[in-house]
Amino acid sequence: MTLHFTQPEFERRKGRLLVEMAERKLDGLLMFQQESMYWLTGYDTFGFCFFQSLWLGADGRLALLTRSADLRQAQHTSLIEDIRIWTDRADATPQQQLRDMVAGLGGSGARIGVEYESYGLTAAAGKKLDAAFEGFATLEDASRLVDRLRAVKSPAEIIYVRQAGKLALSAREAAIATVGPDVDEGEVLAAMQGAIFQGGGDYPANEFIIGSGADALLCRYKSGRRKLDGEDQITLEWAGAYRRYHAAMMETVIVGPPRDRHLELFAAAKQALEACAHAMIPGKTAGDVFAAHAHVMDGHGLSAHRLAACGYSLGAKFTPSWMDPPMFYEANPWVLEPGMVLFAHMILMDSETETAMCLGRTFLIGVNGNECLTEAPLDLIVN
Amino acid sequence: MTLHFTQPEFERRKGRLLVEMAERKLDGLLMFQQESMYWLTGYDTFGFCFFQSLWLGADGRLALLTRSADLRQAQHTSLIEDIRIWTDRADATPQQQLRDMVAGLGGSGARIGVEYESYGLTAAAGKKLDAAFEGFATLEDASRLVDRLRAVKSPAEIIYVRQAGKLALSAREAAIATVGPDVDEGEVLAAMQGAIFQGGGDYPANEFIIGSGADALLCRYKSGRRKLDGEDQITLEWAGAYRRYHAAMMETVIVGPPRDRHLELFAAAKQALEACAHAMIPGKTAGDVFAAHAHVMDGHGLSAHRLAACGYSLGAKFTPSWMDPPMFYEANPWVLEPGMVLFAHMILMDSETETAMCLGRTFLIGVNGNECLTEAPLDLIVN
Repeated sequence: MTLHFTQPEFERRKGRLLVEMAERKLDGLLMFQQESMYWLTGYDTFGFCFFQSLWLGADGRLALLTRSADLRQAQHTSLIEDIRIWTDRADATPQQQLRDMVAGLGGSGARIGVEYESYGLTAAAGKKLDAAFEGFATLEDASRLVDRLRAVKSPAEIIYVRQAGKLALSAREAAIATVGPDVDEGEVLAAMQGAIFQGGGDYPANEFIIGSGADALLCRYKSGRRKLDGEDQITLEWAGAYRRYHAAMMETVIVGPPRDRHLELFAAAKQALEACAHAMIPGKTAGDVFAAHAHVMDGHGLSAHRLAACGYSLGAKFTPSWMDPPMFYEANPWVLEPGMVLFAHMILMDSETETAMCLGRTFLIGVNGNECLTEAPLDLIVN
Repeated sequence: MTLHFTQPEFERRKGRLLVEMAERKLDGLLMFQQESMYWLTGYDTFGFCFFQSLWLGADGRLALLTRSADLRQAQHTSLIEDIRIWTDRADATPQQQLRDMVAGLGGSGARIGVEYESYGLTAAAGKKLDAAFEGFATLEDASRLVDRLRAVKSPAEIIYVRQAGKLALSAREAAIATVGPDVDEGEVLAAMQGAIFQGGGDYPANEFIIGSGADALLCRYKSGRRKLDGEDQITLEWAGAYRRYHAAMMETVIVGPPRDRHLELFAAAKQALEACAHAMIPGKTAGDVFAAHAHVMDGHGLSAHRLAACGYSLGAKFTPSWMDPPMFYEANPWVLEPGMVLFAHMILMDSETETAMCLGRTFLIGVNGNECLTEAPLDLIVN
């Protein structure tokens, strides 16, 4: 077992989850989010690409149903002792095997929470799950139960988040040292991701965003690299990841002299990020942070160039995305609390002049305010 | 538009898909697999982490519903012209917006295929989809429709697969040059992934597998790196990825003198891989390849140490996994055809003696036989 947290830490997490389950009168919980399994037991895998589920009973018992390729993975990385295996066959029925497992653990007639909102439970598998449990137990959606608990980090988790922040900064240094005229984007990506691996870090839960020229206006990764021109712009969004915990950053780096439009957009992005930092305090909502962003952007006449969201929570995430709830979008009522780790990104994309300008930092919410975990000067980077 | 294929290539693909849809009497198809969208239109994103869907009508019309962050992504990477946006709100109902979009395209009362088996359509979103389309149209599962077409690669695709094979070999060289006593696994990972990025390649659809010591017995990535001992074993599974197309390899590299058990397991793995290569010909099934593997392994008395699957198809895949159907498991009736790209991995994990031995190569199925796309000596690597 290579557990990244102590046994008492895992016991505390399970205790908090059992309290929540009791409040919702759940006799058990079927988890499908890899994030929930990692948080509760340490189980670390991308095996959620196939059907698997972790059961937690109100009695505190844990049991995992997965495939043979993940048997040792669960044994080596988690505290789960009861591991059952289903085998690939043309007529495999793992959902029925899951029902039988739950039956053996006393779940007949129970009221069971299910993480329906999960990449580990496709719509097709969800239908089979509902069919297998029909008449056996009552299933109800409990997708946000563990998410809510995960959103507030413990002191032990914050140690890893801080390490992720350091890795993000080392990737930033690698980027600044690499970007320049005639440099291939692939070199930049190799330098950034290499710095993180060499520092003991992990693959990010989604690809780093890297795009230059007209594609600096994209905020997703895409295949196909190009070389930077003598006058260019490159948008980078990346995260240090350590023990799966993420700390993200975003910058648009200018090659050669910046255009006036770059300077205008940068001034707005910086002011908006500072406004968001002021709004990220306990008691404010995720919607308040978005409003702070939108107020600045719209004041600069940039409402057509900003996105409908400006950040989100970060944590121990698996593919396909490092974005955790809550997200900063209009009127999101989720209240911020101490211990939350939040990424605010100011994304400005002006398609008419093909100008990009992005700026993002990760913050830890404290009792009275917040602390930037990826502290770097808020100056336009010109290489 | 940065399309990686010509317009006629995309037209041929759409033509093949429309024929399949007509045979199944489908008036339209709602795609949720990013792989399908990329194959049909070039659309390249990890935006499938949120709700989005691509519609193809029997009349050949395409329309995409996605979020604002993916508007330019679709414009820059795909040939989709009709792009609709849904906006995050606490009460957002993108599934109803999708129904309205389909209604506007003449889909009322239609018989519509849906990719229910998709990471892009969680069970929760699937329920909302069914509810939104209730009484409006008839939805039926069409998850494997595009998968079947994608499994057989065109000449244009094979050019990229070959490039992926070269990148896989460059990562292998980087690994062999790096692995040794006192070397940190993070250095190995940085060298391998760096070679692929520097060669213009992509992030893989799942993390490279890297584990040493007792964790050489794992066949998934996990967080947490260690330094190699003077006598050690390290299991590596990786893929070159180019334009999202994958070519995978697997090796267990020995540091210091190999143990007798390593030699025994290597002999079996090599023999089994060769048996699989003989079975990978047109007309044989995926189940036949598995049987060839199992026959050799079981003949060596290793049935307790092998897995219940020994490979799968490869293609242009997105996270969380590069594994495509068909998979090599017992009695899988999927018939192999020329143009398929298949990865065969021989995985032997002996928990009693803590010995790992893995060997994997990628093959292109031809008219009469196959060609190894990641050709490297089948010798035990001792560093």
